[in-house]
Amino acid sequence: MNNYFPYIISKLTIDDMTVLGILSDLQVNAVFKSIKKKDVLSKTHLTEANFRKSIYRLEANGFIEIVKTDKEHKIYITEFGQIALNESLNEEEEQWLEL
Amino acid sequence: MNNYFPYIISKLTIDDMTVLGILSDLQVNAVFKSIKKKDVLSKTHLTEANFRKSIYRLEANGFIEIVKTDKEHKIYITEFGQIALNESLNEEEEQWLEL
Repeated sequence: MNNYFPYIISKLTIDDMTVLGILSDLQVNAVFKSIKKKDVLSKTHLTEANFRKSIYRLEANGFIEIVKTDKEHKIYITEFGQIALNESLNEEEEQWLEL
Repeated sequence: MNNYFPYIISKLTIDDMTVLGILSDLQVNAVFKSIKKKDVLSKTHLTEANFRKSIYRLEANGFIEIVKTDKEHKIYITEFGQIALNESLNEEEEQWLEL
């Protein structure tokens, strides 16, 4: 199953990367640092539907975790998510340099 | 990253397993065998919203593939999806036997 993680990274969409990128830039990488979903949404240009889709996808991939309280849903980027983002950005840079 | 695949399997929901189980039972495991999403939905007791969520999740996990044509979206279970389903069912059986 060594090829599974790179395969999942290769399936990340631009929307997924946008969400991961915001969480990473803000260093929202632990439960106690988690921020409201709608605050992340407001920093993107995504529609609510596309944002929801990326949240579902990233949670299934274990790249974000959702922290549910009575009042709100907060999210943060996991260690797997940070590695996935870094590897994906490195790949993009390599592809760009080859152009 | 050896621990990534088991981690993802441990995060599968009952809804996810239901969808994978139907595709596996019907041996819908290749592009040319893919069937319409709504035909899968009709075989479950899931709401449309929960079904859509599982489709998003399973596609992100690479456990199903979506085949898009002009008219409709069809799906099939991938090899990763079949392995995930089998391992998940084995774990459940072991837990049950331990009770």
